[in-house]
Amino acid sequence: MDIKYNITRLNGSIKEEVQEHVSVEEPLEMSLKFKKGDRWNIENISITMRTPGNDEDLVSGFLYNEKIIENINEIEKVEKKGEIVGDYNLQNKIEITINNTKNLNIRKIKKNFITNSSCGVCGKTSLDSIEVLKKNKIDLSFPKINYNIILKSPEFLQNYQLEFSKTGGIHASALIDGKGEVIAIREDVGRHNALDKLIGHVLKNKIIKPENQFIACSGRLNFELVQKALMSNIGLMVGVGAPTSLAIDLAKRFNMTLVGFVKQDSFNIYSNKERIIIKS
Amino acid sequence: MDIKYNITRLNGSIKEEVQEHVSVEEPLEMSLKFKKGDRWNIENISITMRTPGNDEDLVSGFLYNEKIIENINEIEKVEKKGEIVGDYNLQNKIEITINNTKNLNIRKIKKNFITNSSCGVCGKTSLDSIEVLKKNKIDLSFPKINYNIILKSPEFLQNYQLEFSKTGGIHASALIDGKGEVIAIREDVGRHNALDKLIGHVLKNKIIKPENQFIACSGRLNFELVQKALMSNIGLMVGVGAPTSLAIDLAKRFNMTLVGFVKQDSFNIYSNKERIIIKS
Repeated sequence: MDIKYNITRLNGSIKEEVQEHVSVEEPLEMSLKFKKGDRWNIENISITMRTPGNDEDLVSGFLYNEKIIENINEIEKVEKKGEIVGDYNLQNKIEITINNTKNLNIRKIKKNFITNSSCGVCGKTSLDSIEVLKKNKIDLSFPKINYNIILKSPEFLQNYQLEFSKTGGIHASALIDGKGEVIAIREDVGRHNALDKLIGHVLKNKIIKPENQFIACSGRLNFELVQKALMSNIGLMVGVGAPTSLAIDLAKRFNMTLVGFVKQDSFNIYSNKERIIIKS
Repeated sequence: MDIKYNITRLNGSIKEEVQEHVSVEEPLEMSLKFKKGDRWNIENISITMRTPGNDEDLVSGFLYNEKIIENINEIEKVEKKGEIVGDYNLQNKIEITINNTKNLNIRKIKKNFITNSSCGVCGKTSLDSIEVLKKNKIDLSFPKINYNIILKSPEFLQNYQLEFSKTGGIHASALIDGKGEVIAIREDVGRHNALDKLIGHVLKNKIIKPENQFIACSGRLNFELVQKALMSNIGLMVGVGAPTSLAIDLAKRFNMTLVGFVKQDSFNIYSNKERIIIKS
């Protein structure tokens, strides 16, 4: 499932307002319904950020792959639940009725399988919940950053990313200032870990000054990464790859400038384009 | 942190035995130590799969980014714990002493922040725990698969991956048979979701026959993906990108053939190369 966004594309020296397809990211709250003695129980077991579509396949595969069920026939019924959100008749809750509870250990499941660290809520309220974490929007008077510096992000990441050149299989996050100086960079097989490492390092060393800095990430940008960056008032975030719908929505909501698909002489701006100086 | 593996590389029509650098993936178990009244408490709060190195940065950033602490100074001490594992003096447990428990809500933290769905254990025992989930190794008598079919994996993924061509920001997993027929393909912004969707679909429709099929994934291969595939006795797994160390270790342990970096006329075989027929 994808959705169109109005974006600003810089292409060489040309700035265009265009529409771009973006992959949808939405939370899915999974609950199990099962009989214990004569009573029906319903237990939430997992929230995951997914692209809507084939949700029944998703939860069936999840339950089997994580050995919550031993056989696919133990799934009696799969029902969509919750309010309809967005423009595409989407429901973000799903209830799976299980007919074999012999091996079901809810406590163990909850311990092992609450998957996503970023969300904790579902559907319409997913973005609202952020406001609990983060009250302030990004200050719109933060100094602007030149497009030239943004264009160099992939180069900055590559130059400093020692391990990537060896293994080709690791993500990086860098804190870069408005003059193009790389303040710090951290690597990890997990995108979220690379960002956590970066933030931990720059906070501890008191070298984070969000008004004059931005964060560049080697891969795609999702909800979780944008949320983590917002916690430190980072107002500009750059991904070498694509952003998800929820990453864009969250960035818009907090006045963050979100940039994606940075190539040699082009990139896309998904939100708050005023922060970037472009010759035109 | 990276580690060298002996691998088999197919390059054009040449088969070479070479050493390759692989990014290390290891679980990190995080626990909080804090005072409640006069008593010290220690609570496990999260397990994440990470690349070792800068672990203190990682946990500091994690605690701040997830608002478990409000200020980096609330971290009193960070200590590595647990047995030393592997060849690189690695410890996979870390204990963070917090000096401000005013806002600490352990129940809420545990609900929201148990991050990784794949592991549940730590360090030396991380691979052992799999054996609880999955007792049988892959049958070594499964029919071999021709290298030509493997080489076509990226093409199969691209041809069927409708949304990728539109958004450039979505992962895919496909089940492919030994003749090169794509049995099913599923897409998602999350790699693990794409694989869960695929497995859910093929189990429900009884079209999975692991002895003659393999799974191809659009991105990198990590521990979680290999584990999920093993649950269905998938004996051959192909990633367009790099595998992690733990993905390779797990594949070796269960006789799975793991292939990475599939390009137009080359790929790397990380384990059980006998399953693939290569002219040479």
